[in-house]
Amino acid sequence: MSDVVQRYAIGLEYDGSGFRGWQKQREARTLQPLVEEALSRVADEPIEVVCAGRTDAGVHAMAQVIHFDTRAVRDPRAWLLGTNSHLGSELSVQWVRPMPADFHARFSARWRAYRYLILNRLTRPAVLRRRVTWIHRPLDAEAMHLAAQCLLGEHDFTSFRALGCQARHPRREVQAVSVYRRGESIYLDIRANAFLHHMVRNIAGSLMCVGRGEQPAHWLSQVLAARDRTQAGVTAPPDGLYLVGVGYDPIFGLQPPEVWPAYDREAQGGFS
Amino acid sequence: MSDVVQRYAIGLEYDGSGFRGWQKQREARTLQPLVEEALSRVADEPIEVVCAGRTDAGVHAMAQVIHFDTRAVRDPRAWLLGTNSHLGSELSVQWVRPMPADFHARFSARWRAYRYLILNRLTRPAVLRRRVTWIHRPLDAEAMHLAAQCLLGEHDFTSFRALGCQARHPRREVQAVSVYRRGESIYLDIRANAFLHHMVRNIAGSLMCVGRGEQPAHWLSQVLAARDRTQAGVTAPPDGLYLVGVGYDPIFGLQPPEVWPAYDREAQGGFS
Repeated sequence: MSDVVQRYAIGLEYDGSGFRGWQKQREARTLQPLVEEALSRVADEPIEVVCAGRTDAGVHAMAQVIHFDTRAVRDPRAWLLGTNSHLGSELSVQWVRPMPADFHARFSARWRAYRYLILNRLTRPAVLRRRVTWIHRPLDAEAMHLAAQCLLGEHDFTSFRALGCQARHPRREVQAVSVYRRGESIYLDIRANAFLHHMVRNIAGSLMCVGRGEQPAHWLSQVLAARDRTQAGVTAPPDGLYLVGVGYDPIFGLQPPEVWPAYDREAQGGFS
Repeated sequence: MSDVVQRYAIGLEYDGSGFRGWQKQREARTLQPLVEEALSRVADEPIEVVCAGRTDAGVHAMAQVIHFDTRAVRDPRAWLLGTNSHLGSELSVQWVRPMPADFHARFSARWRAYRYLILNRLTRPAVLRRRVTWIHRPLDAEAMHLAAQCLLGEHDFTSFRALGCQARHPRREVQAVSVYRRGESIYLDIRANAFLHHMVRNIAGSLMCVGRGEQPAHWLSQVLAARDRTQAGVTAPPDGLYLVGVGYDPIFGLQPPEVWPAYDREAQGGFS
């Protein structure tokens, strides 16, 4: 142990399908306590962590970022290997970095990026079950992409905000959003300064209304303008949702890692 | 029930990680009995199936092909939906087609295609655990690709044949083989008229020796020529192995389907 407290940042991948979300809850299996226990064993003192994005039940992360403070002296590789040795197979620490004391995983984040992954085919997934959202009715990805463009910029996202959302205000800035098809898969990639509770899943659910042709593309801008949750579509399932990146000020030197282990259908060529 | 026996072909996806392989075994959880039970319930008579490629314990399939005979009269959609309703979430029937009596899932197959998927990074997978083979030491995919080219054509594959292999002879014709990297993932795609027991995994294990720089690329042709299993590398784990396609004579009208649900790292752009 040292007299000096050191702050560390950690990049974390997890399969959220077996968890009731990130945050500690009495009598529910969540991710945060497992990470804190593993870190505490390596540190040999109690560790508490703060995360960039509190993912919900069933939601995955390829690149969650957390921070913690400790007096324990270990090099980053020892933190990484030690922590992983105390974590189950559903979690995997990707990197560990010592950070200045003014770094904060949540408040220093400039943006979060999520991917919502839809398997759009007649039959349910087997290999990727609970890792994609299965929609058997055909979706028009181009119409979904067009519709989504109205979300760009700073808006009041009340229409896509969960009832229990505890954010202080409903304004968020969507910095990038695109929807595209690769074979049977449809990707919704969205980046914002921050997200309201259920915001991506509520947007995904509304975009599916457009994709099925139940609503025209311009309907989404009406929903957004209404600032009324009852105007939007249902909340889409968590299975296909991934936290894929968190961006910080370059002074922190935390480049968003390449985060996506590829099942690459494009690369399938040669066998068809 | 009809007096006439009808043959059907089925395309099947499964996550093999929880199974001791395809083939029926006393006191082991395998895939074949689950499929036969589900079909028998739909048919209301006992059904036995024949598969194109008997996958081993832990091996997955995106496009296994099986056939069965029945007197039960159901349309293909009823077979598909009914069978899936009786299968657990680890299996999913993709398509069902009535076939002529001379079609045979195994003996009519002209080729099988396998993909071996390696996650090549320092830290273990969480989201894709048991769905990729994790290799933490850097692999040179180009050297592996070069080495693999000696496998093309018809050869005696004794060096890559499991001890217990029950094939009548060790000659197989490799029709296509390539190794390539996409970010942290390395793909080994290989197509042959048929495969010996453990042949893909033994080839993958030897290619990893080349990828790690322990052997030069031309070593693989020496191993092949030796016709001696002890000359080759160890058998690679089953986790990353997928049966991705089976090819038949065009007269059967079974186009190999697009089989790969995409985790597409290329499509990640915009967030980096």
